[in-house]
Amino acid sequence: MANNQKVQEITNMDKDFAQWYTDVVLKTEMADYSPVRGFMVIRPYGYAIWENIQKAYDKRFKDTGHKNIYFPLLIPESLLEKEAEHVEGFAPEVAWVTHGGHEKLEERLCIRPTSETIMCSMYSKWLRSWRELPYLYNQWNNVVRWEKSTRPFLRTSEFLWQEGHTLHETAEEAQAETLQMLGIYREIAEEFLAIPMVVGRKSDKEKFAGAAATYTMEALMHDGKALQSGTSHNLGQHFTKAFDITFTGRTGEIENPYHTSWGVSTRLIGGLIMVHGDNNGLVVPPKIAPTQIVIIPIAQHKEGVLDKAYDLKKELEKNFRVEIDDSDEYSPGWKFNQWEMKGVPIRLEIGPRDIKNNQVVLARRDKNEKVSVSLDTINEDIEKLLEDIQSSLFEKAKKMRDEKTYVAKNMDELENIIKNTPGFVKSMWCGDAECEQKIKEQTGATIRCIPFEQEDLGTEECVCCSGKSEKMVYLARAY
Amino acid sequence: MANNQKVQEITNMDKDFAQWYTDVVLKTEMADYSPVRGFMVIRPYGYAIWENIQKAYDKRFKDTGHKNIYFPLLIPESLLEKEAEHVEGFAPEVAWVTHGGHEKLEERLCIRPTSETIMCSMYSKWLRSWRELPYLYNQWNNVVRWEKSTRPFLRTSEFLWQEGHTLHETAEEAQAETLQMLGIYREIAEEFLAIPMVVGRKSDKEKFAGAAATYTMEALMHDGKALQSGTSHNLGQHFTKAFDITFTGRTGEIENPYHTSWGVSTRLIGGLIMVHGDNNGLVVPPKIAPTQIVIIPIAQHKEGVLDKAYDLKKELEKNFRVEIDDSDEYSPGWKFNQWEMKGVPIRLEIGPRDIKNNQVVLARRDKNEKVSVSLDTINEDIEKLLEDIQSSLFEKAKKMRDEKTYVAKNMDELENIIKNTPGFVKSMWCGDAECEQKIKEQTGATIRCIPFEQEDLGTEECVCCSGKSEKMVYLARAY
Repeated sequence: MANNQKVQEITNMDKDFAQWYTDVVLKTEMADYSPVRGFMVIRPYGYAIWENIQKAYDKRFKDTGHKNIYFPLLIPESLLEKEAEHVEGFAPEVAWVTHGGHEKLEERLCIRPTSETIMCSMYSKWLRSWRELPYLYNQWNNVVRWEKSTRPFLRTSEFLWQEGHTLHETAEEAQAETLQMLGIYREIAEEFLAIPMVVGRKSDKEKFAGAAATYTMEALMHDGKALQSGTSHNLGQHFTKAFDITFTGRTGEIENPYHTSWGVSTRLIGGLIMVHGDNNGLVVPPKIAPTQIVIIPIAQHKEGVLDKAYDLKKELEKNFRVEIDDSDEYSPGWKFNQWEMKGVPIRLEIGPRDIKNNQVVLARRDKNEKVSVSLDTINEDIEKLLEDIQSSLFEKAKKMRDEKTYVAKNMDELENIIKNTPGFVKSMWCGDAECEQKIKEQTGATIRCIPFEQEDLGTEECVCCSGKSEKMVYLARAY
Repeated sequence: MANNQKVQEITNMDKDFAQWYTDVVLKTEMADYSPVRGFMVIRPYGYAIWENIQKAYDKRFKDTGHKNIYFPLLIPESLLEKEAEHVEGFAPEVAWVTHGGHEKLEERLCIRPTSETIMCSMYSKWLRSWRELPYLYNQWNNVVRWEKSTRPFLRTSEFLWQEGHTLHETAEEAQAETLQMLGIYREIAEEFLAIPMVVGRKSDKEKFAGAAATYTMEALMHDGKALQSGTSHNLGQHFTKAFDITFTGRTGEIENPYHTSWGVSTRLIGGLIMVHGDNNGLVVPPKIAPTQIVIIPIAQHKEGVLDKAYDLKKELEKNFRVEIDDSDEYSPGWKFNQWEMKGVPIRLEIGPRDIKNNQVVLARRDKNEKVSVSLDTINEDIEKLLEDIQSSLFEKAKKMRDEKTYVAKNMDELENIIKNTPGFVKSMWCGDAECEQKIKEQTGATIRCIPFEQEDLGTEECVCCSGKSEKMVYLARAY
């Protein structure tokens, strides 16, 4: 943390949520704008959160048999064009490399917007027999999609993500994989990021370019807008046929495998900010926090205070991620505000009186509560407190979401909710793309998903055309 | 591992070292050629080695106070041009992005060949006071340098690496950082990759474009050619002045900080292959091996064999990285060859007779030795064996290097050695760039470094011009 700055002012989130978000991102030094329009710099505090997210997901990917791999950054134009829907979806937003050094290239290369095409071109070279299946591969990398309007973490022309790409012998296995990975996305998002998710299938209009079906997890932000937070695609045989990927099956027949792809990105950090943050800044769930405890010595010039604080840091570091703020430029109060803004889950205060009483003060970031705990039981007490903060954040986020989830039975109700009390809206939908389009045009809301957990809304009439509907959907305006 | 292939033939390394290298890379499935000329796919086995290398370095970087960060992939042409030597060095080998989607960009953007320029542009925005220094940042990413002639891992148009970029208050601190990082590079290369390194300074001709001084670690490959394996640059104030990075110093003066950068890349994997590999394929040092032990059941159709093998896997997995090859398509002998080719340090054989005798057979990859060990002491025995393999590989590589290290006192000797018994050549050099150029033209060898450990070669005459020389250098042909 820069020591030469004053505690920064953060815009009130209820007054201007967009500005509040920008303030939090910039002033906590999670990210910054770069000299390249639409590209951001992820600063150490933001990157450390990303590393913790990566670690959590990567472990689960490996637990479930996936291996990491790395494919080239650049994709020849002719490869991108092989799957018709895919190129139509992505061509308008790719960056093109036309020159290498001083020479013009014979064929343009695009910077990967996603890697289905380049990976399929290799899979078709490698795969021979059913015995080699499934292919369970993943890569952590950067992708570029040329965006007109960008915001740090939420939508940037370059972002970091992982993209899993698997091949399977049967359609059933591919479908099981697609849902398994969505399940893992949700598990880590809820358990580590403390963000409750609605999971379901995307409408055809909203699915990935080239997918048979796209599944998604959707979160609700503090301002009532939805954030698509991770998607898992059943690609069927769209790409494996276009790329002529074949294998000799169990009966000796030549077959095309079934294919999935799935991704989560640095966008999750944007979700983290907008779900848990408050008017004092960021609130980071303990399991993902780069710093779980910040020690702030009180009256640190007094004899023994700093020594005791350093001893404590050494002790706590065995179990927790700990920092100490021993700068002598600022008052404890100033430091309190700074670290609160950074969203560190626990502030530990230790001063002469605490030392005398063999205790410290623990202040939790998520609630306005302080407790004194004995140095004898400090490890257990902190562990319990971190667990409580983690689960409280999830419950609080769930409560917020539930309070902002509504039911609309017709367009008037829908329009009114989206306009006046934005949030998730549960409605019936007939399945017609025209209704979907009309809803979007009239309200700005889109179908976030057809949730796995269908509910009885007391009507079977489409919110838009009143036609017979069997599916309930979640609607919202979205990032 | 693909089960439908025969054990692959690998070209004899003494007959055709280049073909041997390609065979090892492709047939062990470490990497493959991609549809984009000069770009490779790093397959799971190669990538798992990279992950282990990353983990080892990343830990040391963090131990020494560095934080990870992420800067944009693309750099505006105007930024690349700010440091004169730098742009001259890199412009001929960068890839240019000219279009975003369907629109032509106002300014060309290059894909980062290295990130000094984009990072300095942000450092100049961020830095204010001496109190914020040092900046100790690192990023793990991909870079692109348009290469005409490429080989997997050794020289590819895209490669994965880390690039550290630090700022310091004083020249002394920057120099200490430059050397500290070179020391860490060497430490991990020697302790984990078991590759002995010569460390020293690059000549002005060979230094990084824009550096005040470049330091390097150089390894000797099996064919007597050198591999530059990691470099650490003291950049002085070259970039900080060009980018107008300033801070208010302790006395209130406005100053330019001192700057370093340092990198190691996936090239290290090429070194690993060419230092330890043999005619049976790869040999991977235990500390870096994705699989340390492969269990091969003998007569696996007999009752109890597979069960015992699975139990053993479960037991050993607590301490080691273990795989089991239980495929029923191939004979144990065929499996032995396959895993030998993959370079797995220990093969563990277990059959009915072993089970009866409460033992297993351990075969080490690096030497042609098998031992039977009791199941009662198997964890300790394997741990000792892995340690012995690790240190034996280092000693063997060191012996190989020392045997291929020569002294040349004049051009005839030098030419003769490089031509007939290639290796490192220690010679005196007057320091003149003309001599350096002449050596290169006449012998193909370059000055690898001016080593920190200077030796008395019994002469003070330059190997080229016989002029007075105070510096001993290492010469070699290099990758």
